Amino acid sequence: MDLQLARGTKDVYGEEAILRQEIVAALRKVFECYGFVPLETPIIERYETLSSKYGGGAEILKETFRLKDQGGRELGLRYDLTVPLARFIAMNPQLKMPFKRYQIGEVFRDGPIKLGRYREFTQCDADIVGCGSMAADAEVICLAQDVFRCLGLDVVIKVNNRKVLNGLLESAGIKKERYEDAILSIDKLEKAGEAAVEAELKSKGFSSTGVSAILKSISLKGGFEEKIKQLRKTKSKECLEGANEVSELFSCLPNKSSVEFDVSLARGLSYYTSTVLEVFLKKSKITSSVCAGGRFDEMIKMFFGSKRDFPAVGISFGLDVILDALKEKSVAPKTKSKVFVIPIKAVGDAFKITQQLRSAGINADMDISERGITKNLDYANSLGIPYVVFVGEKELKLKKVKLRDMKTGKEELLSLEELCKRLL
Amino acid sequence: MDLQLARGTKDVYGEEAILRQEIVAALRKVFECYGFVPLETPIIERYETLSSKYGGGAEILKETFRLKDQGGRELGLRYDLTVPLARFIAMNPQLKMPFKRYQIGEVFRDGPIKLGRYREFTQCDADIVGCGSMAADAEVICLAQDVFRCLGLDVVIKVNNRKVLNGLLESAGIKKERYEDAILSIDKLEKAGEAAVEAELKSKGFSSTGVSAILKSISLKGGFEEKIKQLRKTKSKECLEGANEVSELFSCLPNKSSVEFDVSLARGLSYYTSTVLEVFLKKSKITSSVCAGGRFDEMIKMFFGSKRDFPAVGISFGLDVILDALKEKSVAPKTKSKVFVIPIKAVGDAFKITQQLRSAGINADMDISERGITKNLDYANSLGIPYVVFVGEKELKLKKVKLRDMKTGKEELLSLEELCKRLL
Repeated sequence: MDLQLARGTKDVYGEEAILRQEIVAALRKVFECYGFVPLETPIIERYETLSSKYGGGAEILKETFRLKDQGGRELGLRYDLTVPLARFIAMNPQLKMPFKRYQIGEVFRDGPIKLGRYREFTQCDADIVGCGSMAADAEVICLAQDVFRCLGLDVVIKVNNRKVLNGLLESAGIKKERYEDAILSIDKLEKAGEAAVEAELKSKGFSSTGVSAILKSISLKGGFEEKIKQLRKTKSKECLEGANEVSELFSCLPNKSSVEFDVSLARGLSYYTSTVLEVFLKKSKITSSVCAGGRFDEMIKMFFGSKRDFPAVGISFGLDVILDALKEKSVAPKTKSKVFVIPIKAVGDAFKITQQLRSAGINADMDISERGITKNLDYANSLGIPYVVFVGEKELKLKKVKLRDMKTGKEELLSLEELCKRLL
Repeated sequence: MDLQLARGTKDVYGEEAILRQEIVAALRKVFECYGFVPLETPIIERYETLSSKYGGGAEILKETFRLKDQGGRELGLRYDLTVPLARFIAMNPQLKMPFKRYQIGEVFRDGPIKLGRYREFTQCDADIVGCGSMAADAEVICLAQDVFRCLGLDVVIKVNNRKVLNGLLESAGIKKERYEDAILSIDKLEKAGEAAVEAELKSKGFSSTGVSAILKSISLKGGFEEKIKQLRKTKSKECLEGANEVSELFSCLPNKSSVEFDVSLARGLSYYTSTVLEVFLKKSKITSSVCAGGRFDEMIKMFFGSKRDFPAVGISFGLDVILDALKEKSVAPKTKSKVFVIPIKAVGDAFKITQQLRSAGINADMDISERGITKNLDYANSLGIPYVVFVGEKELKLKKVKLRDMKTGKEELLSLEELCKRLL
């Protein structure tokens, strides 16, 4: 049999898997510190739910894995965690608002496989549903600040408001029905540069004057207050409303140091209605964003045709790119085995000592294959375990064990108590 | 649109979801303490891999969800974590043995839905591959002991050996080709009782004398040493080998207090070759096992037709039944919000105070909806948050906040420092 992975999927193992787990644990910790409660929805959803026109849209639907159960029911694998959230809210009218939930889980897209794009990947989302106040948007930004502080990554959080962008397009003379087209191109500014965006806008049929006006309006410079002041001068009502929201949002932030107001920030997704944000690494070769989000006040309501309003703001962290960022900084996982116990004709005693180390909270592994010392040292080395303990009759008579530092090769005789103290 | 979950799936939310996360965190912690490294394999596998005849067998294959990607490739959703482990080992010949990995993830079975049976559920597996020594089996038992100690659940670990059971069947005059049939019935002894097993064996065509002999041989009584002594008296070579293995396994265990040798323990799965084990709750209404496992020395090797031996021993924890056990004991989740901050015309200050509580490591939530006090108290109450803090102008002038104990209704004025100390 020719064993292969399904196309576009991967195994994650070893240090990489440990580091991934540590990132997930850090995310959970901060999410829960902010009062977000975990939600676990199934990976399999009814196709009818996934194909709602207020879900991910036609592009994503083309990439949805479809399947049937034994009863012939049409099903699909979820392509994001937002549609299941909308479905969950629709099915649970008793939920108290605001509803703050986080979810970390696999999503699936049967799309073309480019470098670094997988058909199965992990999303980490936190959303606040049922609160239209800018304090909620501010809370989401604080959450992002704390997540990256906790991970030891230096970031800049770029913030914009879809109403500001719409207003600037209005002032540039662009018609409302072309906003989305323009925004999808502007979204590429950071990655592709101004020339590419200019060319794309022209190829989409925007006039030369229109394109110049767009690019001029989104190149607004200056400090925060100056930008707000300039925006308040435009004649667009929508722009003014957006500027007021941004101003309110910034006034809620206890710590603005890493937050930047950038009127050119677009975010492609059409369901954003107000705040949009995207987080980038400082001092890194990685240029793609590590986290992104925004406010989507219409999506959930429209999703199930509710008369009740469900304003919402959310944020999604990119697990794979955060992992790349930590690897770039050579961050080592913390939860690896600290010590490898090698019995020398004393399996029972070695077992007892290993159990005592574990009881003391020390991650410990032990030779269970009864191999020779050289093979065991090779094995411990290959797993990157920093210490080895030898348990032999000679040492046991002295009520001691021999600790070896794998880096320096230094060895010393220690009592079990001394050993625990040394390794903790 | 009529919103529904896919049949046989569920949402997990609120306290239940928090408790589930805490169980998973406890499992991970103990697994890693024992030197198991996480492995994450994809949910989607090639159908060819899943349908290997050394995988889950025809019964499970009938229940496998099938799908195709855009390239028309035949795929399926994994039905367990053992087949992906075998596939991973086959594809990574560089792996150092013994290979200790754990995996926690969703598996899928498109089977009939009985009470408590889901089509998507979570498995938590830890396996040691590449070590035939009984020390590995002992390590897996110690792991189970520590997991349940860590979760605060009182359990008994029943241990048997497939060779012992085969040998007893041999001594009872049963033919080798009927062992599996007999074992599948014996497996129901704990749940269905002796009469039911007797009837089932007879309906399978075992003779009355045969059935009596089987039931007599597996009702071996007495202490551990006595059982081993009696087994060593049987004429079956296989039984003797099994008894020696059990004896060796028990001699490796530093703590035997919760471990019982039970020659009637069968475990249905045909791929077990030696040790089998199953863990049950003491003092509980829950009779199904919370964890089970055993040694499968042939499966991985046969899976990919290797000449190299891959002996293996593993254990699988039942997340849902463990959750039920904790709920039965009314265990409350630890990581809920501890305090809900209510601003009284002081959103900015309340936000700052909430952020300071969070920085101090206190899980804190805050009113972002600018609602009245009564509504906010209702909300905090509905989320089960034990404390509320009022941030108002009056208190701020005194550089204090008002803390309210939601259970007693007692209120007191505290400085931020005093508040942190009280809530930590």
